[in-house]
Amino acid sequence: MKAYLECIPCFFKQAIETARFAGASRKTQKKIVDRIAKAIPGVSLNISPPEMGELIYGTVSKVTGKRDPFRKVKDKSNKLALELYPDLKAKVARSRDRLLTAVELAIAGNIIDYGIENTLNVGEEIKRILSAEHRAIKKERKRLFNYPKFKRLLKKSDKLLIIGDNAGEIVFDRILIEEIMDLYSGKEITYAVKEKPIINDALMKDARQCGIDRSAKVVSTGLGIPGVVLKSCSKDFVRIFRRADMIISKGQGNFESLSEQKREVCYLFMAKCPVVASELRCDMGDVILLCQGREG
Amino acid sequence: MKAYLECIPCFFKQAIETARFAGASRKTQKKIVDRIAKAIPGVSLNISPPEMGELIYGTVSKVTGKRDPFRKVKDKSNKLALELYPDLKAKVARSRDRLLTAVELAIAGNIIDYGIENTLNVGEEIKRILSAEHRAIKKERKRLFNYPKFKRLLKKSDKLLIIGDNAGEIVFDRILIEEIMDLYSGKEITYAVKEKPIINDALMKDARQCGIDRSAKVVSTGLGIPGVVLKSCSKDFVRIFRRADMIISKGQGNFESLSEQKREVCYLFMAKCPVVASELRCDMGDVILLCQGREG
Repeated sequence: MKAYLECIPCFFKQAIETARFAGASRKTQKKIVDRIAKAIPGVSLNISPPEMGELIYGTVSKVTGKRDPFRKVKDKSNKLALELYPDLKAKVARSRDRLLTAVELAIAGNIIDYGIENTLNVGEEIKRILSAEHRAIKKERKRLFNYPKFKRLLKKSDKLLIIGDNAGEIVFDRILIEEIMDLYSGKEITYAVKEKPIINDALMKDARQCGIDRSAKVVSTGLGIPGVVLKSCSKDFVRIFRRADMIISKGQGNFESLSEQKREVCYLFMAKCPVVASELRCDMGDVILLCQGREG
Repeated sequence: MKAYLECIPCFFKQAIETARFAGASRKTQKKIVDRIAKAIPGVSLNISPPEMGELIYGTVSKVTGKRDPFRKVKDKSNKLALELYPDLKAKVARSRDRLLTAVELAIAGNIIDYGIENTLNVGEEIKRILSAEHRAIKKERKRLFNYPKFKRLLKKSDKLLIIGDNAGEIVFDRILIEEIMDLYSGKEITYAVKEKPIINDALMKDARQCGIDRSAKVVSTGLGIPGVVLKSCSKDFVRIFRRADMIISKGQGNFESLSEQKREVCYLFMAKCPVVASELRCDMGDVILLCQGREG
């Protein structure tokens, strides 16, 4: 997905919020805004929003000198999600369609995001997404919640690649991975995190904190942008991407940067911004399971 | 009031919306955004948001070649407000405190704004503001709705200056002017509009369309910015400003640009943006009657 003009005001907003988060003074915040403003005329709208994200968050890091301003937030999100883990496992265990519940939880976990909204209303979100009412809605709008296709692809695929998104959220992904391992034998699952700190995206450290490495091989994309731009990823990651039978991509940033890929990818995320919602013809807050691209 | 960093994302948003409103293509919109971005590092945050407004709306006009993109909107707002005029007059006539109702209507008219929100929910707003419940709220928060002081100042002042804001809204101001003329004899009222088109701010043409010139002397500020920056206004306007016994300023833009003035001004407006609401320690949508500055 290409960036829209509407993304530009939002980039400035995110830069100011992150700069404040990093403890920058008003003067430093203005310096950051000025640097980004200077760069805007050179930025093409043919790149995806996460590629712009590198400019925004990279500038904040450079000017404030804080390499990972969201480290504490990430630790907190991981801790919170790990506390929820036993309850979530129980929810999956007692549900009629365990895989569906695990998929829904993996999407619900995507509410843990500091790039756009600062809320962490995870409990409420889980309740909403798992409700009978919401299941009926999802069943009706099959285009954006194509669970039958997801299940079909999963069944026939041996090598899975799951591209993670945020810290905390990855605990929810762990539950999905464990469920897949329980349901099907012989699947080889690789889980990708970001190489360098970017917003609250999960890093190798988070994958370990959250126990993902117990059930999946954890690799990094090689990047420090809030998405996956294949031409810039590490060779190792690109090889894994090409060889995977099925790719599951978590979060809006990964969708924004991968959606023009030819390869079929199953995107699991919540529509968190008006631009993405309008691109998908859905409402903000909608729960998305979109299988898009040519079958591998 | 000085601009806040949060104003910058909002400026870009307004520029994009206005460019679209003027029928600009995506390429032209990007050109406008780039020009504004280039100018941002040279802009000090010590100026008021309306002074920044000149950069934003001026750039849209220059690049699109449309001097007055909101002309049609302004005509429509005037027409709509004139249709409401008989009803509004009747509302004032049957109220216990006619002046209070006229003041409240003048503030309710401030909902007619295209700079920030595109809604034109005037009827609902009038109902809300005139309700007994809302009157009780306003009475309690005297700091931001100081009607007793407004009335006291009005009583003792002979030369009044009312600084208008938007097209359409000025019909509501006309009702206030007519009420003042009815209640007190011998008042000399001057009504100021903008000299050049800026957003949907009222011009001389609008004042005539709406019949303001029947009860007040209409002058212009000499400016084409969505506020009043005295050092840039015409000499005539500055003289009227200095000589007035009481100044009534309509709308958020005039407040933002005049609020650091020494002269006492009675500001009548609705708090329409989070930055102004936080500056005033009030909620968005609050109805403001603030008398601020040293008594003249």
